[in-house]
Amino acid sequence: MFVPFSPIPRTLMGPGPSDVHPRILTAMARPTIGHLDPEFIRLMDEIKVLLQSLFQTKNELTIPLSAPGSAGMEASFANLVEPGDKVIILQNGVFGGRMAENVTRFGGELVLLQTDWGRAIDPEQLRLALQEHPDAKIVGFVHAETSTGVRSDAAALCKLAQGAGCLTIVDCVTSLLGCEVNVDGWGADVVYSGTQKCLSCAPGLSPFTMSERAVEVTQNRASAVKSWFLDMNLVMGYWGKGTTRAYHHTAPVNALYGLHEALLIAMDEGLPAAWARHARNHDALKAGLEAMGLKFFVPESERLPQLNLVEVPEGVDEALVRARLLKEYNLEIGAGLGVLAGKVWRIGLMGYASRPENVLLCVSALEAVLSSSNAPINRGVALDAVQAAV
Amino acid sequence: MFVPFSPIPRTLMGPGPSDVHPRILTAMARPTIGHLDPEFIRLMDEIKVLLQSLFQTKNELTIPLSAPGSAGMEASFANLVEPGDKVIILQNGVFGGRMAENVTRFGGELVLLQTDWGRAIDPEQLRLALQEHPDAKIVGFVHAETSTGVRSDAAALCKLAQGAGCLTIVDCVTSLLGCEVNVDGWGADVVYSGTQKCLSCAPGLSPFTMSERAVEVTQNRASAVKSWFLDMNLVMGYWGKGTTRAYHHTAPVNALYGLHEALLIAMDEGLPAAWARHARNHDALKAGLEAMGLKFFVPESERLPQLNLVEVPEGVDEALVRARLLKEYNLEIGAGLGVLAGKVWRIGLMGYASRPENVLLCVSALEAVLSSSNAPINRGVALDAVQAAV
Repeated sequence: MFVPFSPIPRTLMGPGPSDVHPRILTAMARPTIGHLDPEFIRLMDEIKVLLQSLFQTKNELTIPLSAPGSAGMEASFANLVEPGDKVIILQNGVFGGRMAENVTRFGGELVLLQTDWGRAIDPEQLRLALQEHPDAKIVGFVHAETSTGVRSDAAALCKLAQGAGCLTIVDCVTSLLGCEVNVDGWGADVVYSGTQKCLSCAPGLSPFTMSERAVEVTQNRASAVKSWFLDMNLVMGYWGKGTTRAYHHTAPVNALYGLHEALLIAMDEGLPAAWARHARNHDALKAGLEAMGLKFFVPESERLPQLNLVEVPEGVDEALVRARLLKEYNLEIGAGLGVLAGKVWRIGLMGYASRPENVLLCVSALEAVLSSSNAPINRGVALDAVQAAV
Repeated sequence: MFVPFSPIPRTLMGPGPSDVHPRILTAMARPTIGHLDPEFIRLMDEIKVLLQSLFQTKNELTIPLSAPGSAGMEASFANLVEPGDKVIILQNGVFGGRMAENVTRFGGELVLLQTDWGRAIDPEQLRLALQEHPDAKIVGFVHAETSTGVRSDAAALCKLAQGAGCLTIVDCVTSLLGCEVNVDGWGADVVYSGTQKCLSCAPGLSPFTMSERAVEVTQNRASAVKSWFLDMNLVMGYWGKGTTRAYHHTAPVNALYGLHEALLIAMDEGLPAAWARHARNHDALKAGLEAMGLKFFVPESERLPQLNLVEVPEGVDEALVRARLLKEYNLEIGAGLGVLAGKVWRIGLMGYASRPENVLLCVSALEAVLSSSNAPINRGVALDAVQAAV
């Protein structure tokens, strides 16, 4: 009835998944071995060490969770929040809203502070909230809002929270490897990410790290963690030291082959070099799109280089443009999410997708499609601008 | 510091993961596309239809969850159990114990009925429990206990539960495709499985199905599902009909390529042919091992053909035998789990691993290793017995 699925190769420049590096695709096709095989235990140990480097942390509990980034978020709140705990969430997009949802589902008392979508969180807002709520236990926020392309000042926010004796939960799904994530430097307690953004890996895993202090809180809970699958008291035993691992679940073996390869690629390039590459390609994209007359949605100093929100010009059918890019050029860019639906495009330059050839493809394809639909753009100037910036 | 991981190819005859079919490995390495790409939506739709055939159900909510089988178990209880609900769990191994754990974590009132490990659940035990607890809302049990290699009579148990007005949750992690799973025929309400057993797929996904009746219960809960990630009210929207999908999380694209391919392979063979193959190779393994003088742990009528529990002969260091099989023949068999640790081996003949050449390899390797360690076995007769049975 059905035939084997043969995906049309695309260039993935949306908010994720991003293009997967060919080395990673090859790694995922290696023969599956047992999840208790000594060879696999060695792989797990290497992944832990590599993830520590990537997160810039010495946290012993630094592992990939066997589920996507949303499970990373859930694990963070499931382990730290007990019924009645006061949790401050700083929201400036869709994913901060999910954090709030997690707090209430686990019985926490939510203090929700809103920021305009498209703007970074103001540390002053947190300072005042901590004064007003001296009994708060946890502060949660998104470092890199995937819905708005905004980077907030994680160092400043973590410092304020820590000063008030709060634990911090920081969403680094879109930031990790695309710009600096410094878990120990920030003093963050729980940080999670996803594999399908700047790591250029297939979606499905959530790199996750937890400070000693947060581990202690998890170990000394009054009530059991609601989620058996995400209970770090059990997951820790599975990813534990040496050969004393306790069976918990069956690890996604081939996905972890892919992650291991992605981490090797990241370490070969080096973190500062990867951040610089993301910044450089962002500059080139910006030069091209601004020359065309398109506007960026986020103030320059708060932008994520790896995820660019571009305003849809007046009178343009944004969904049609995306459909044409996909159909005519096999190029995927993202739609706006939540309140930004219909108003912006989200153009990702993440990981392996953050390359000059992709910048050029995106700018020229957008110019071609917008021109042919009579959108009010400047023609014939964007490519020179890109060329000058790469 | 580290080099790309190059796994030593093994033959996987433990309790899972089982050998992954080469077609599936190849499928997982195909280029990643976006999870909202129309081509990917088509893949999701095909997977749903194929999973319905595999589960023998018309349930509209029939999807793979983006996490391993343990998340499938958790999703079942997270969605159906509300605080105070009375839940009867029939336990005859490790995984029934996990079900009990799930009930209490979600605030259910647990009625736990134990059966000796290595024996099927007695329907009479359930009949009496349902009389004693007319207010029970849910009955949960494991169809194929991965820790003991036992198959229980799911049809009889579901019928009793349904007769008493209870919803049923049935763990089919190890049974699906290795022996009959008939969701609609049984009248089961929530059934979950894993990809790493008889589907011969990489670990990491949980095929999952929910009856109309169970969906209604989920939609009309008094309290929110504790898990945002596994809340079927949200997951349904993501896997919903046509193009009206609501973004929930990023699907594990490449893992789903693998599952799609696994489902095509299963449908090419046909369900009755796959069950018959598993039965035939079990008979051959049994002939060989019994000729050698080894004993099966489970009474014949209650055995799973795809997972064989074999008693460790007196005086034999079982861990050493497994280590030697792995080191000398790249053959993985499983250890006992829970109270059976040290007492049995678990030999899987699941999916792609259920082939005559694997039966022969396992029997001959066991004979070679046991002989060279002076274990009390009959020598030189096992291979003829296998040959007569294949």
